[in-house]
Amino acid sequence: MSRIPDERPLNPKPEVITELRRLLPAASVLATEAELAPYECDGLSAFQQRPLVVALPETVEQVQQIMRLCHRLEVPVVARGAGTGLSGGALPLADGVLLSLAKFNRIIDIDPANRSAKVQPGVRNLAISEAVASHGLYYAPDPSSQIACSIGGNVAENSGGVHCLKYGLTVHNILKLKLVSVEGELFEVGSEALDSPGLDLLALMTGSEGMLGIIVEVTVKLLPKPERAQALLASFDSVERAGAAVAEIIGAGIIPAGLEMMDNPAIRAAEAFVHADYPVDAAAILICELDGFNAEVSVDVMRVRKLLLDAGATDVRTAADDAERLRFWKGRKAAFPAVGRISPDYYCMDGTIPRRQLGPVLNRIAELSAESGLAVANVFHAGDGNLHPLILYDANNPGELEKAEELGGAILELCVAVGGTVTGEHGVGVEKLNQMCVQFNSAELTQMHAVKAAFDPKGLLNPGKAVPTLHRCAEFGAMHVHHGELKFPELPRF
Amino acid sequence: MSRIPDERPLNPKPEVITELRRLLPAASVLATEAELAPYECDGLSAFQQRPLVVALPETVEQVQQIMRLCHRLEVPVVARGAGTGLSGGALPLADGVLLSLAKFNRIIDIDPANRSAKVQPGVRNLAISEAVASHGLYYAPDPSSQIACSIGGNVAENSGGVHCLKYGLTVHNILKLKLVSVEGELFEVGSEALDSPGLDLLALMTGSEGMLGIIVEVTVKLLPKPERAQALLASFDSVERAGAAVAEIIGAGIIPAGLEMMDNPAIRAAEAFVHADYPVDAAAILICELDGFNAEVSVDVMRVRKLLLDAGATDVRTAADDAERLRFWKGRKAAFPAVGRISPDYYCMDGTIPRRQLGPVLNRIAELSAESGLAVANVFHAGDGNLHPLILYDANNPGELEKAEELGGAILELCVAVGGTVTGEHGVGVEKLNQMCVQFNSAELTQMHAVKAAFDPKGLLNPGKAVPTLHRCAEFGAMHVHHGELKFPELPRF
Repeated sequence: MSRIPDERPLNPKPEVITELRRLLPAASVLATEAELAPYECDGLSAFQQRPLVVALPETVEQVQQIMRLCHRLEVPVVARGAGTGLSGGALPLADGVLLSLAKFNRIIDIDPANRSAKVQPGVRNLAISEAVASHGLYYAPDPSSQIACSIGGNVAENSGGVHCLKYGLTVHNILKLKLVSVEGELFEVGSEALDSPGLDLLALMTGSEGMLGIIVEVTVKLLPKPERAQALLASFDSVERAGAAVAEIIGAGIIPAGLEMMDNPAIRAAEAFVHADYPVDAAAILICELDGFNAEVSVDVMRVRKLLLDAGATDVRTAADDAERLRFWKGRKAAFPAVGRISPDYYCMDGTIPRRQLGPVLNRIAELSAESGLAVANVFHAGDGNLHPLILYDANNPGELEKAEELGGAILELCVAVGGTVTGEHGVGVEKLNQMCVQFNSAELTQMHAVKAAFDPKGLLNPGKAVPTLHRCAEFGAMHVHHGELKFPELPRF
Repeated sequence: MSRIPDERPLNPKPEVITELRRLLPAASVLATEAELAPYECDGLSAFQQRPLVVALPETVEQVQQIMRLCHRLEVPVVARGAGTGLSGGALPLADGVLLSLAKFNRIIDIDPANRSAKVQPGVRNLAISEAVASHGLYYAPDPSSQIACSIGGNVAENSGGVHCLKYGLTVHNILKLKLVSVEGELFEVGSEALDSPGLDLLALMTGSEGMLGIIVEVTVKLLPKPERAQALLASFDSVERAGAAVAEIIGAGIIPAGLEMMDNPAIRAAEAFVHADYPVDAAAILICELDGFNAEVSVDVMRVRKLLLDAGATDVRTAADDAERLRFWKGRKAAFPAVGRISPDYYCMDGTIPRRQLGPVLNRIAELSAESGLAVANVFHAGDGNLHPLILYDANNPGELEKAEELGGAILELCVAVGGTVTGEHGVGVEKLNQMCVQFNSAELTQMHAVKAAFDPKGLLNPGKAVPTLHRCAEFGAMHVHHGELKFPELPRF
């Protein structure tokens, strides 16, 4: 299956393979069909494309040489971390080099006094917390894939996780990046001090999906492990009431470490899979974790318990011990694979909405689901309004994948309509290019292209991802033009 | 006095005044010498320059019309908020329009459920907290000038304050901006939801010092007022020990709401001015404020007290009540004017360093002070390593201003040398252009110019500020070239 929304005319240059073999050891240049197969998609398997060649550099110098080569030959480059991304940001190009950072897997330095660590981009997210645990520290952002996903990919997609409600997204938890430019030059953005003067290129790089440079080193912030974590599990007989409870908790000035919601289909799937002792008849459950100082957690647990009951919870359980707390999370953490057991395929969406819209939006998603005939399970970061509707379908039934994508698109457009955005933490990649046309007007998209061109005038870094062309938006027909049009200097097309 | 480090050839176009009078009411276009005088500098009075004309628009449409006019005539534009900035970011250009946002002073909307407020850029920082106080909310960043400074200026300079140790800089406390482009088009960056897809233009705009667009609306995040605030005042007989205590507190996993340090000259000046009952013989004091949940604050106060004593504090006072807590702060808050009383002039620097360098850097500043013959008082945000050395001088003594600037430059370069940066919260403006050459290499500066050009190809928005030209750096002779050079497409010069 090849479903590439790429508007570029293909221009394969096989000489790049020969030249790469001069730069890298034989085992680090993959070009046979069998070797390329594992790289044909990332975590978004609906889109597949084999690259022209995969390069596996081991040193910064090799990355610089590869970029100089590709720049000279005008060959596009797609960077790849662990390949767990869910929006197709690392989808290869048929005429491009796939630059894997898998061999950049060293923790370079841990600085407990400055609460920071310097790591290579291929280091797994969880490996950072493991490496610094003996200092009482951890790295806060925790995507569901944290066992497997790489920190470089986290930066490229500005990843979140359960804990980002309290501790922020990746952009709030990194200090400095080392990158290789499209022309092969090494540069740094950010600083280990409070603020970096001049333009905030660190934030600009974070979430830029490989379009501005190749990340070769990441300095992350570390946090002290909280003294105590405690969790509550609340049952509701309507998703609206559960949504309202979320707004009540946040509105009371409490910032939980995590505040997650699952609806009935998700509860049932998780319970059948891992037996977490979930209330299978509840319309929705909320799992609320509080962490911090012991005395603070004790009082906040009481306050949250009261808020949940006042908001109409039919039952509220407080974990008696850490084993029970982990059991509360067991079902939530297994929810995606659990849904995978009850449906041949599922499509995980990722949109954000203002918290107060949770109830109405979940109801509208149920209506859209009924209209399309495809079931939807909801498992998501309710605290920050980050929805993850899982659309259940069977790719073997002709037309169902397309129907699932259509329903997904409609859900994202609903998010924008209520004042939200088309992504929370998974990035745009290739998946949400059309919805970017709904989110932004052509002036705003043009501005993003202009910024991209400031780093990559020839459009060689991950072309076709994250920011749609105006042409594509015009074809999609959902061009959002609430303001006028900005006229920037003539820009290259990506 | 005219001390403009501007490399642009002047090109005054008086017709812009006539045309502005067609767009705005007579009282909103200022062009006589007497009318222009109040605008000849911002908070950095060492640099002064009258603009060609001052425009005081009242509506977004008027801002758009002014920008269209200036774009057509190719007249440079400098935006100005309250004019309290300390790095000369709002210094006018002799041939430019000074665009004052003073009349944009309305709070448009307060949304307690979403904990956000939408305000015009001319609204004063403190006015936001006052307007939302009845909801139990406040806006966290608190520059010393918060009674007077405007939120638009805060965004332009990415301002900090005492509370930014715990609650972050301006960039961490805003959600969305509305801007007018150099061509007069209205556009938005950011979102009221968790994350905004595509490139992070919100962070890019924050701290960009008026070089990328004119801010016409700011949506800020609001925080719940903490249940309790408590403060400690610790005396030390050496600045090094005080610096080490700061590192101990932060290293213990405590994040105070504020952690401020004053050295002996600053203590004496403040005490003489406001009688805060400071220990006038101490080499340094630390003021540590803890806020949050009542029980948490109680225990943290005990922990901090013990850490301070263990670190060698000769005395630690805990505020008995809120009146005493406010007295602790009274001297700190009055420290700048207090220093103004003991010296005809002073020059406030703003650099950041890694916390563990506090002691050594303060010692080296004392040496540099002795070498130059100018006294230095230190009053600063110790918790995040943000120094504010106040260099005392007398502008009436020939050569002393130059000597003060030289000492200031040497201190900033010292900050960079120990791994810090040349600004913490005051921005670069015109003041630190030379030090930017020390902080960044030419490839990095070239990249900033390329990003600037993506928004403002003709270089009409606040030219000559924040990012030095490579030519200037070459002349300054401190060009920092630890990496190679990036070659971007031919760029306009600013």
